[in-house]
Amino acid sequence: MNRLTGIHPFNSEPPASLLRAKGFLTPPMLHYVRNHGLCPQLSWHTHRIDISGLVDRPMAFSMDELVRLPTVSVPVTLQRAGNRRKERNLIQKGIGFNWGCAAASTSIWTGVPLRALMKHVGIKSQEEGANWINFEGPTGEVPQGDTTYGASHARGAMMNPARPVMLAFMMNGELLHPDHGYPVRLLIPGYIGGRMIKWLTKISVTEEEGESHYHIFDNRVFPKHVTSKDEATKHKIWKDAACTINDRNMNSAIWAPAHCEKVSLSQSAYEVGGYAYNGAGRPIHRLEVTLNDGHTWRPAEIQRFERPNEFGMVYCWVHWTVDVPVRDLRNCFEFAVRCWDDSQNCQPERPTWNLMGMMNNPWFRVKVHDVPGANAIWFEHPTRVEPNLKHAWDKDRLHLTVDGQLPSPGWQERLQKEYSAAFAPLPLEQQPLDGEVYNDKARFLRTETVQTGATAAQKPAPSTGIEVSKEAMSGDGSLTNVGLKVDGRAQCPHCTQRFGSEKALQQHFKFIHDPNHHQED
Amino acid sequence: MNRLTGIHPFNSEPPASLLRAKGFLTPPMLHYVRNHGLCPQLSWHTHRIDISGLVDRPMAFSMDELVRLPTVSVPVTLQRAGNRRKERNLIQKGIGFNWGCAAASTSIWTGVPLRALMKHVGIKSQEEGANWINFEGPTGEVPQGDTTYGASHARGAMMNPARPVMLAFMMNGELLHPDHGYPVRLLIPGYIGGRMIKWLTKISVTEEEGESHYHIFDNRVFPKHVTSKDEATKHKIWKDAACTINDRNMNSAIWAPAHCEKVSLSQSAYEVGGYAYNGAGRPIHRLEVTLNDGHTWRPAEIQRFERPNEFGMVYCWVHWTVDVPVRDLRNCFEFAVRCWDDSQNCQPERPTWNLMGMMNNPWFRVKVHDVPGANAIWFEHPTRVEPNLKHAWDKDRLHLTVDGQLPSPGWQERLQKEYSAAFAPLPLEQQPLDGEVYNDKARFLRTETVQTGATAAQKPAPSTGIEVSKEAMSGDGSLTNVGLKVDGRAQCPHCTQRFGSEKALQQHFKFIHDPNHHQED
Repeated sequence: MNRLTGIHPFNSEPPASLLRAKGFLTPPMLHYVRNHGLCPQLSWHTHRIDISGLVDRPMAFSMDELVRLPTVSVPVTLQRAGNRRKERNLIQKGIGFNWGCAAASTSIWTGVPLRALMKHVGIKSQEEGANWINFEGPTGEVPQGDTTYGASHARGAMMNPARPVMLAFMMNGELLHPDHGYPVRLLIPGYIGGRMIKWLTKISVTEEEGESHYHIFDNRVFPKHVTSKDEATKHKIWKDAACTINDRNMNSAIWAPAHCEKVSLSQSAYEVGGYAYNGAGRPIHRLEVTLNDGHTWRPAEIQRFERPNEFGMVYCWVHWTVDVPVRDLRNCFEFAVRCWDDSQNCQPERPTWNLMGMMNNPWFRVKVHDVPGANAIWFEHPTRVEPNLKHAWDKDRLHLTVDGQLPSPGWQERLQKEYSAAFAPLPLEQQPLDGEVYNDKARFLRTETVQTGATAAQKPAPSTGIEVSKEAMSGDGSLTNVGLKVDGRAQCPHCTQRFGSEKALQQHFKFIHDPNHHQED
Repeated sequence: MNRLTGIHPFNSEPPASLLRAKGFLTPPMLHYVRNHGLCPQLSWHTHRIDISGLVDRPMAFSMDELVRLPTVSVPVTLQRAGNRRKERNLIQKGIGFNWGCAAASTSIWTGVPLRALMKHVGIKSQEEGANWINFEGPTGEVPQGDTTYGASHARGAMMNPARPVMLAFMMNGELLHPDHGYPVRLLIPGYIGGRMIKWLTKISVTEEEGESHYHIFDNRVFPKHVTSKDEATKHKIWKDAACTINDRNMNSAIWAPAHCEKVSLSQSAYEVGGYAYNGAGRPIHRLEVTLNDGHTWRPAEIQRFERPNEFGMVYCWVHWTVDVPVRDLRNCFEFAVRCWDDSQNCQPERPTWNLMGMMNNPWFRVKVHDVPGANAIWFEHPTRVEPNLKHAWDKDRLHLTVDGQLPSPGWQERLQKEYSAAFAPLPLEQQPLDGEVYNDKARFLRTETVQTGATAAQKPAPSTGIEVSKEAMSGDGSLTNVGLKVDGRAQCPHCTQRFGSEKALQQHFKFIHDPNHHQED
């Protein structure tokens, strides 16, 4: 797992290629974790869920009492609203830390349907004002507000029979792991993970929407021009219902090839693959990969694992694969995936920045590079979240530099200046009319060359031969200069060698020409 | 109404500006009409709905019997899956005729809930195989298949209590107009209109999906590379469930300004406005207008007319408005609108062509031009569907040429060659890798100049003064040439006048220099 925020709170995601390897159901220890504070230490035997407010029979349930009610088991993909946030933060740092594309995982969840529970306690009618159902974790869980993490949900969405909202106490047939809400959590299939309160302690039914600190001040998508908390306050937008995130948006990502994966050009085809999910119970209908920036698309095969429920709703990811000739991969600048849902809506082409970096779902774009001096190509993802460039899972199949590092932190980080310039937000008062200046910036990102209208850049022909890292190459093709870094800017005064930096020249001097060298350790 | 296909079948849409003027509810006589054949002549007194198949009590309902069951009334926006199809056909003509952006209308529909009806006849369980509910209009309605227009719907979607599917017999409190299905039609809130069988005659419950001709061979979205019926057959895609259209996608359009509307630059702000709708009961959450090709967005005010139902679902359009400084409109090349839904999905930036031209929903882009010689601008929609350029609604506020014609058929038709080149489909085997060549073509459409990287085109400063049409302008600023068309290519041999064409020169000769002129009528 890649830890994203130090030791506490524990926030982590697995390498995407491991998610791929495990298939439909994610082992609990690989399931992404998002905690807002210390993981509460609760006991099955002493935990209570207090139910109050506009119900006929307010009561406190023990876990033993809860599990005596009817239960259901359904597979559900959970996903962090911040999945792929690192891509947003590289445009401009917003509120929230960097997630890669692996903050999504699937389990079979078992629990008591909320409808059954609400019937059991006698939820009052909407005419009597029972409009909102509020959920809270334990006091002291989080640092802000009243120190509980809570969410307020519209009664209609929670009681919709087409959506199996539940109080879940098992995950893949075992009691919940503490990081996933032991002993009991709210589970709302199709919603973002942040709305499914873990360590569930309190439910209250109210007439007005709840105002729990994390309900109002977290999990919100503001328009792009809201560039700071102060701007959000100025535009009076914190409590705007249109900014709340509940159902997730559609999204897809590529996990094969992996970041920095190397493929020989002698291989005829490569199986590109990844995942896709959608919200609100709506199925993913189509996945397509483009090698020409979206002008034509190759259809992918979809692997479906889930049977739609009685109302045709689905709540899990699909996986997808498409065979692409390696030659075509080599000749394109980048390839990208997009998905379509059953309403013929599709993933957006470009990112739209928002303050909290939530719900990032533009086409997932992977760049293709030649391996220097080799008959091979390597792939560059938008970002990577491993803590340093030497930390790579599954090094055998990766392209590494001569000192064993990954050659790139992801193309969006490598090109951060240009990526940010193309998609950065601006306050409403500063909206430019010069769309073409922006378009030039966005377009540069694909080919990494300035385009000049009719003469679009063509990728150069691939080199072949043995693999030699750039650092290991020397000379200029002439016999005289073999072994010399002819383009080095630092000339040694004692011999013909040149070096890329003064520091390298000093090292050279110290070990080759320095008369005192042999006296050192 | 603008007739789109001659007299029969009657297919028509209103001018979008009239839809705007009428507000939330569309008068039945302005409601778009889509018929596939002659409008059947049915009678309330003799019409029957035959219900058969996997039900406990097969029966035939008279209208009087039907309306004795419980009824509901809900406002629902209907929309043609081909709404905005003319924009697709200008890329490449597919199957289907040209719709503008006004194939959407809203009424209050009253009918018997399908759930109540199915309970009344005792629909069998899914375990007993009752998976599909099939609906048909009268025999002889349409030319193809068994001459009925039908659709087969999944039981789960039809019986979902969150969606008020009904057999509708009233529209805005009156019996249905024959063009809208008199005496009774299927109504599925959120679906495209083409799935809501009019003149409903037969319902059957079956284990397998129905194969009515128009269910299989109409209302389908194929991937872009399927460029003909033969290609669809080759890819074995006709019956692919992922190609069926049921729930509509999100869409928005601009109805203010109207096509060719003229606005004085002395006016400080203009209220841009339009409509937006979504499918599957999901609300539209955000509407935004860009003046710089999508790099920044101005938020629009949303006018909501509908109260969400018990499950938070909505089935009607919203209207929206945003004040934009006229100076900014003048200085941009074009402006565009996009909408977002409650899952933070949004409208796509570019069109994706499909064979049947269905579900076209990219950003709706309006171009801005100077009125020649005047201190004013005029607006150019993507398309117009009025039958000829002299046929225009509400001429008073439009910019017209000196002979009273609209100056443009819409920018996508005016630039059809370039528009088609940028977005045309190709078979799978011909997918290019040269995305940048395509990108240049797409980019040309906005500024109508070839872009050259760093030096993006700037719009020239506006001219001011009285309005003089281009045709009425003469001379070159010198006293000598006042009244002369100095750039005319046809020089009169008898005087100093020049003309733009030989025909114009002949007219000039006939009436000015021809010695026989006075002998003619």
